[in-house]
Amino acid sequence: MTHRAYNFSAGPAVLPEPVLRIAKDQLLELPDVGASVMEISHRSAAFKDILDGTRGALRELLELPDEYHILFLQGGSRLQFAMVPMNLRAAADQPADYVLTGSWGQKAIDEARLQGAARVAWDGSGDGYRRIPTPAQLDLDPGAAYVHFTSNETIEGVQFAREPDPGSAPLVCDASSDFLSRPIDTTRYGLIYACAQKNAGPAGVTIVLIRDDLVQRSPRTVPRMLSYQVHADHESLFNTPPTFAIYMVGLVARWLLDDVGGLAVMDQRNRSKAKILYDAIDQSEGFFRGHADPSCRSLMNVTFRLSTPELEKAFVQQAAEQGMVALAGHRSVGGIRASIYNAMPVEGVETLGQFMRDFCRRHA
Amino acid sequence: MTHRAYNFSAGPAVLPEPVLRIAKDQLLELPDVGASVMEISHRSAAFKDILDGTRGALRELLELPDEYHILFLQGGSRLQFAMVPMNLRAAADQPADYVLTGSWGQKAIDEARLQGAARVAWDGSGDGYRRIPTPAQLDLDPGAAYVHFTSNETIEGVQFAREPDPGSAPLVCDASSDFLSRPIDTTRYGLIYACAQKNAGPAGVTIVLIRDDLVQRSPRTVPRMLSYQVHADHESLFNTPPTFAIYMVGLVARWLLDDVGGLAVMDQRNRSKAKILYDAIDQSEGFFRGHADPSCRSLMNVTFRLSTPELEKAFVQQAAEQGMVALAGHRSVGGIRASIYNAMPVEGVETLGQFMRDFCRRHA
Repeated sequence: MTHRAYNFSAGPAVLPEPVLRIAKDQLLELPDVGASVMEISHRSAAFKDILDGTRGALRELLELPDEYHILFLQGGSRLQFAMVPMNLRAAADQPADYVLTGSWGQKAIDEARLQGAARVAWDGSGDGYRRIPTPAQLDLDPGAAYVHFTSNETIEGVQFAREPDPGSAPLVCDASSDFLSRPIDTTRYGLIYACAQKNAGPAGVTIVLIRDDLVQRSPRTVPRMLSYQVHADHESLFNTPPTFAIYMVGLVARWLLDDVGGLAVMDQRNRSKAKILYDAIDQSEGFFRGHADPSCRSLMNVTFRLSTPELEKAFVQQAAEQGMVALAGHRSVGGIRASIYNAMPVEGVETLGQFMRDFCRRHA
Repeated sequence: MTHRAYNFSAGPAVLPEPVLRIAKDQLLELPDVGASVMEISHRSAAFKDILDGTRGALRELLELPDEYHILFLQGGSRLQFAMVPMNLRAAADQPADYVLTGSWGQKAIDEARLQGAARVAWDGSGDGYRRIPTPAQLDLDPGAAYVHFTSNETIEGVQFAREPDPGSAPLVCDASSDFLSRPIDTTRYGLIYACAQKNAGPAGVTIVLIRDDLVQRSPRTVPRMLSYQVHADHESLFNTPPTFAIYMVGLVARWLLDDVGGLAVMDQRNRSKAKILYDAIDQSEGFFRGHADPSCRSLMNVTFRLSTPELEKAFVQQAAEQGMVALAGHRSVGGIRASIYNAMPVEGVETLGQFMRDFCRRHA
């Protein structure tokens, strides 16, 4: 007999257990349909209900104005790194501004540069991406096609507390790892994209919120599957979308609305969870060393080091033996990373906090 | 209490019930993992086992030589329509040959032409795509980057009985709707792509088999997510792949190997199923009019007309009342389409065949 572990994976990540139970119950037969959600046409009435319901729940959660389209695409942030410059730049030599606060922002600008001009508006790599820039530190080009930032850097564990001011250019956000974790003022954004596998659902669907005037920018020469305009015109049914993943996002969004009570409640829960771990770090007298500057700490990914790789390995291993899994840091940086997305229950974080204190006591 | 219908959807399509039952049993907890397959890192040992197992089962089913990579991508055939010319053409003015036997081939060449030169090597649109060309009818360019064809046209219901001879150019096949339905000599192909949602799994994953020398053609300027070389170099882990959909493909492939007994057995079953419906058409004395020329009939999608749209509507409706759903033809052509992919049980086809005879008797 197996049992569910406390799963601190950075993504694909833990899903709400009530959501998994519904998916399990309905796996062979959607109510009144006689087939699995995986077996029905994306153009059927039953799937249209799922698609409309998912869109409606996201719109309600985010209080998203009508002028924003909600698109369900594929390819994750990696494909958005290419689609954003392909669609939003008027010409290959129009610059776009990138605010670099971590590894994913760096990958985004690398991809944009394959296709044309991209400027670094702020570069946090000098101290290993521990900080978020102050408003005065941003060096923006008034002619930029857009300003791109990464709201939460999953690998380094730094997060914007509020979005940067992009001046006159539209703000574009890779929100992959904190989407739906807190309320945001969506009207400050031109485009928000997020892969689902952190807070919103399983891997395989990418959610894009895009303001209608930006949709109009898509050049006609862009491959049709990569055109925001094509997907907006077809309301995400240009091709067969990832139907099961969309269904799961719908269940997660309903869980946030009905079980949790909305994004403000979720935000409070996430703050409480993060505080447990950051307190354990701060009260360890240097035994645990947090990566991010305390003012820029992520509420989603708590990253820290111990004094030696051996001690870190022992930490990860002993935690796993006690039912807390996937705590190793990203392979590019090492250390420890506890990802505590929406669906991580507070009990899981309390168990980890207690384990940290015990581990410190035994090894300090 | 609902019950599973006979589902003739053209895709997303019926899945093998034993596969759905395993997925249901494991939905909350993969054995020995303590988490859902949707919740584990794509770089975890548990997912590596799933990925390797899925690849291994496909390689065994298709007797695929080592020089072919198996990639799990996203975006369906629609994105392959763009990726194939992006990656395989040496320059935008190098021609590529397209054999047009239906609506999907037409969409493929339209996309290729957004980016450069593409030739029509044979055009079946004149009589509404009822036929497959004879070898002598193909007009190939010896300098073509590749020859593209669609092995089965889902909308019109025409299928190549054997692959065309591409001369010296590599053969590229959109096998979306007959992949894994019969044995093929993979060594005749340079690249085969297929979305999963017909015979191989749920929507959300695209399987690409590509010979190693073609991988080498990917230009470095292609967006990284669209480069076959990048995905081959990273063995489909360049980005987070659609993990659940890959897991499902693995279960379907195991079902084909272990429960069915391989692709030759599957092919025999598919031929028997198709014969039931084509016999009902041929013995109806013109009441049912098949779309495809009898020599080019699809074993996957049986398309036919009745004398009036009203009669067709009555056919679809009465069939649904008797538990046979999704029989309406594609919205672009109308009529009736019975999609009888691998997972459609023979009992479902027999029930439909009997319904056709009864309907004919009542309305002829």
